Amino acid sequence: MTTFHGVVPPVVTPLTETFEVDYESYSRVLEHLIAGGVHGLFVLGSTSEVIFHDEATRRRILEHTVKVVNGRLPVLAGVIDPTTDRVIGHAKTAQSIGVDAVVVTAPFYTRTSQPEVIDHFRYVREALDVPVIAYDIPVCVHTKLERKTTVALAQEGTIAGLKDSSGDDGNFRYCLLDLGDRRDFFLMTGSEIVVDNALQMGAHGVVPGLANVDPAGYVRLWNHARAGDWVAARKEQERLCRLFEMVWVSLPRTSAGSAGVGAFKTAMRRLGVIASNTMARPQRTLNADEAATIETIVRSVGLLN
Amino acid sequence: MTTFHGVVPPVVTPLTETFEVDYESYSRVLEHLIAGGVHGLFVLGSTSEVIFHDEATRRRILEHTVKVVNGRLPVLAGVIDPTTDRVIGHAKTAQSIGVDAVVVTAPFYTRTSQPEVIDHFRYVREALDVPVIAYDIPVCVHTKLERKTTVALAQEGTIAGLKDSSGDDGNFRYCLLDLGDRRDFFLMTGSEIVVDNALQMGAHGVVPGLANVDPAGYVRLWNHARAGDWVAARKEQERLCRLFEMVWVSLPRTSAGSAGVGAFKTAMRRLGVIASNTMARPQRTLNADEAATIETIVRSVGLLN
Amino acid sequence: MTTFHGVVPPVVTPLTETFEVDYESYSRVLEHLIAGGVHGLFVLGSTSEVIFHDEATRRRILEHTVKVVNGRLPVLAGVIDPTTDRVIGHAKTAQSIGVDAVVVTAPFYTRTSQPEVIDHFRYVREALDVPVIAYDIPVCVHTKLERKTTVALAQEGTIAGLKDSSGDDGNFRYCLLDLGDRRDFFLMTGSEIVVDNALQMGAHGVVPGLANVDPAGYVRLWNHARAGDWVAARKEQERLCRLFEMVWVSLPRTSAGSAGVGAFKTAMRRLGVIASNTMARPQRTLNADEAATIETIVRSVGLLN
Amino acid sequence: MTTFHGVVPPVVTPLTETFEVDYESYSRVLEHLIAGGVHGLFVLGSTSEVIFHDEATRRRILEHTVKVVNGRLPVLAGVIDPTTDRVIGHAKTAQSIGVDAVVVTAPFYTRTSQPEVIDHFRYVREALDVPVIAYDIPVCVHTKLERKTTVALAQEGTIAGLKDSSGDDGNFRYCLLDLGDRRDFFLMTGSEIVVDNALQMGAHGVVPGLANVDPAGYVRLWNHARAGDWVAARKEQERLCRLFEMVWVSLPRTSAGSAGVGAFKTAMRRLGVIASNTMARPQRTLNADEAATIETIVRSVGLLN
Repeated sequence: MTTFHGVVPPVVTPLTETFEVDYESYSRVLEHLIAGGVHGLFVLGSTSEVIFHDEATRRRILEHTVKVVNGRLPVLAGVIDPTTDRVIGHAKTAQSIGVDAVVVTAPFYTRTSQPEVIDHFRYVREALDVPVIAYDIPVCVHTKLERKTTVALAQEGTIAGLKDSSGDDGNFRYCLLDLGDRRDFFLMTGSEIVVDNALQMGAHGVVPGLANVDPAGYVRLWNHARAGDWVAARKEQERLCRLFEMVWVSLPRTSAGSAGVGAFKTAMRRLGVIASNTMARPQRTLNADEAATIETIVRSVGLLN
Repeated sequence: MTTFHGVVPPVVTPLTETFEVDYESYSRVLEHLIAGGVHGLFVLGSTSEVIFHDEATRRRILEHTVKVVNGRLPVLAGVIDPTTDRVIGHAKTAQSIGVDAVVVTAPFYTRTSQPEVIDHFRYVREALDVPVIAYDIPVCVHTKLERKTTVALAQEGTIAGLKDSSGDDGNFRYCLLDLGDRRDFFLMTGSEIVVDNALQMGAHGVVPGLANVDPAGYVRLWNHARAGDWVAARKEQERLCRLFEMVWVSLPRTSAGSAGVGAFKTAMRRLGVIASNTMARPQRTLNADEAATIETIVRSVGLLN
Repeated sequence: MTTFHGVVPPVVTPLTETFEVDYESYSRVLEHLIAGGVHGLFVLGSTSEVIFHDEATRRRILEHTVKVVNGRLPVLAGVIDPTTDRVIGHAKTAQSIGVDAVVVTAPFYTRTSQPEVIDHFRYVREALDVPVIAYDIPVCVHTKLERKTTVALAQEGTIAGLKDSSGDDGNFRYCLLDLGDRRDFFLMTGSEIVVDNALQMGAHGVVPGLANVDPAGYVRLWNHARAGDWVAARKEQERLCRLFEMVWVSLPRTSAGSAGVGAFKTAMRRLGVIASNTMARPQRTLNADEAATIETIVRSVGLLN
Repeated sequence: MTTFHGVVPPVVTPLTETFEVDYESYSRVLEHLIAGGVHGLFVLGSTSEVIFHDEATRRRILEHTVKVVNGRLPVLAGVIDPTTDRVIGHAKTAQSIGVDAVVVTAPFYTRTSQPEVIDHFRYVREALDVPVIAYDIPVCVHTKLERKTTVALAQEGTIAGLKDSSGDDGNFRYCLLDLGDRRDFFLMTGSEIVVDNALQMGAHGVVPGLANVDPAGYVRLWNHARAGDWVAARKEQERLCRLFEMVWVSLPRTSAGSAGVGAFKTAMRRLGVIASNTMARPQRTLNADEAATIETIVRSVGLLN
């Protein structure tokens, strides 16, 4: 198996009602995930609201994570900002704190191209000693990592893995066909709802935001897939699909961005993991009615008695 | 006339070949623009490659600008980053340095909504004492400032002006119809090529990247429009349209982002304003062949003998 | 001046409540436009709901038009369907009926390319004896006619004109700069709301759907522009912009497609030109509340006493 | 099992070099598919170049199909055109010829909405006696059939099935979860490359254009899935993914539209099924070099010795 594999949740960053990171709750999130049996942690990803946090806060989150995790699991750190040298700045900090790899998107805000994207990853890699993982998330950066780009970067050793949150499962499959036999490269899906499919294709792992709510569910799904029991895998996946319906509860009152992570936070609050479901500004926090609907969903899949 | 008006170029940030800001060249850019007769300066905008610069560099650019300009012209400062509190951080710095207004885009990377965009501007405004100007640039942030959003923010006093780089001239016209009679609100176009039209509609000013190359041309255009001489305005605009063709010279070898600002830098180098046409990473710098083509264009409109 | 020029409305096709063409009303529409002083007629365009009509109905509409117009004005006929040979079929019919030119879009439904678009226009031209006019309407066909495509087709004589409904005024301007001095080629804008701008740039005419409601208004605007009185042109344009606000009245109850033409029909019914505001299926027809709002708008610009 | 199920290829329509339907080749295509063991036939779909054919040609293709198939397999007929009453026209013809169901897309060219899409399917259904199948193909019609739309139409009995060519596997899964237990409703994927996944989710069938080249391969994949042998299903799918690489061979010389179906035709010509790989105008036909590359691909997966 590749170094990084299995269920690697993008870790939610709980906030206080005054928009500070709530480190007590955050410690509980980390322990909740570890207790759920996950295989790694992806901090400062989109689900972590990384884009809302400045350099100092990001540093403190990473330091806290590394201290709490204390080597029990590999830690991947998102180093997400619009352009190359700013990403390198974040990445050097993350490296110095001791993360196991950094996760990098294509440039954004700037109008870029696939050759520039390739150069971007090369520049970042050259500046670091830790592995660089590519993060394909066109819904946020508005550039797709094309198959050729991913394969070229993998074959030359610039990137050590891919987190695919593009929703383009066909393209993901071709990356698996092109690269899946390399023991030094892994491919993970960011999907919550077609994880069984991705694993059946040969994916090495999964990075589902919903695992913040139900880590044990995704671990069961992973174990069923490892055992080749696709009937059980599908059944567990379908249960998780029903749980995932929480992400549409607050639409259109909130944006799509806050509806998803906001639902995870709301469910985690109900489960006693975090103290508040506050979202970073300018996102809207889910309200009491929405929380009640989410509680019903959480209950319906057996997470609450 | 509104406080801010006229030709307000988004100021190019020259770099050395090792990707540092070249402050000697930068001072020359500022003097070149002032000598050209422009009415204000917009620093740290998209054309300034703001998104490539970290906090410390942005601070130093603003300090340098304010020192060199020394009150001769109003200075608008872009405070462009993905989310609210990071924008506020930049804006407080800019305010403390003494800029006359800050320029703010909609959030990006995060999937947002018009109500969140409205809240975003309100939060930024509440944190500051200087005027906030909205910057509509969907090609970069992938969210359009809808007419209703702009008008609501203007009418409640949250924003003091709009820089419209959306290319949606119909929408711009309706904003002018809704808001054009307010003496405390201005509307500027970010276009280089339909400036005469925008002024004919009643726009208060123009923010053309190409004015870095030919500030005097845009000032002539502005003066013709002020005088109601639309025949001369059109003639000057058409000359500038021919000059603007430089932005396509390096396509598709470079990205659209680097093709435009890279062309401006290449022309400015030829005109002796800056020392290098280096672009911030991962953008590609224009090469000798492309520079030769650009020189031909510059010469054809009379900027070189 | 080019052969085709001036105000050339895309003619609304009135329907009965049982979705048949209402030819009595249609004759009144044609007379209403001619009486308003327009310079040509564009039938079977998007505003005519051409895409809802089959071959037999299109033929009858053209025959009726040619008979009623009886040479008083040039008649342009849209021959709009997804692919080349089907377009040629419509075009041969239109030619045999005696229209003065046919209007052709890029292919749609099929995933096409600019070289295929060029071939498409060439094949259509080769099959006909009447002039072919290119119709750039990416909001419907999802392909933009690039400047290079339009200029190449114009220079080789394949197309005799362009109707630009793309909203990309910068691109339109470059087409005017490249082609505007040819006496055998005309460029018209499909805009309702920046017509004064297009004429100031040098456009040869305008094809505004809203002219079905107020042909005389657009003719006044045209005449002001011809006289170089841009102050009066702007004033008339701004009045028409206020009238154009009718197109948003029924949103989001109806689609954007039916909201626009549906508003024109509703206003025309109120003005006594047509008998019913029925829209072709599956579009929704505007209701009584929406009609009342539209009446208020029509009244506010002086079209009703 | 639902009435319609299994492998249902969208049947390629071979053309002569003068752009007429080549009925001799077409008969061979039908026999080739039936011999390959497929479970149904979808004629006049996108792969059939339906959008290039006029009413008379469509009628003759259907008549020929029904005569050749002669009840051996169910025949689904695409009735694809932009708007409701034109679709009804095609559908009545298809019904009179004796097809088993008609396949209908959302409206296109017109700017539509989900409520209009729902009305569209209702109007079509009311006009017919045969089942109506919804065809979700946003890449062609630029409107997605939302989950709510599909589920509502299914639950009220308006549509009897869905062909999903949207590539949105998550949405497809939710449709399966909402509707998969209905015995009177089927869901098929239009994918060529994640068919094993779709079947693992519970899809009732698959409509792959590539089955024109290798029907037996998809039938094997279907049989492996029916037997629950997901290892063998994946292996067969991966072989077919390698075969599918033919669809990129002619890019960017041809459009995406002609590259795909053009590759299928080129492979089928090499396999002796059809006489010419001619594409309908204005699409470009694949050339000899491209045909040689495709032959290599076809050979590499064992279809040629």
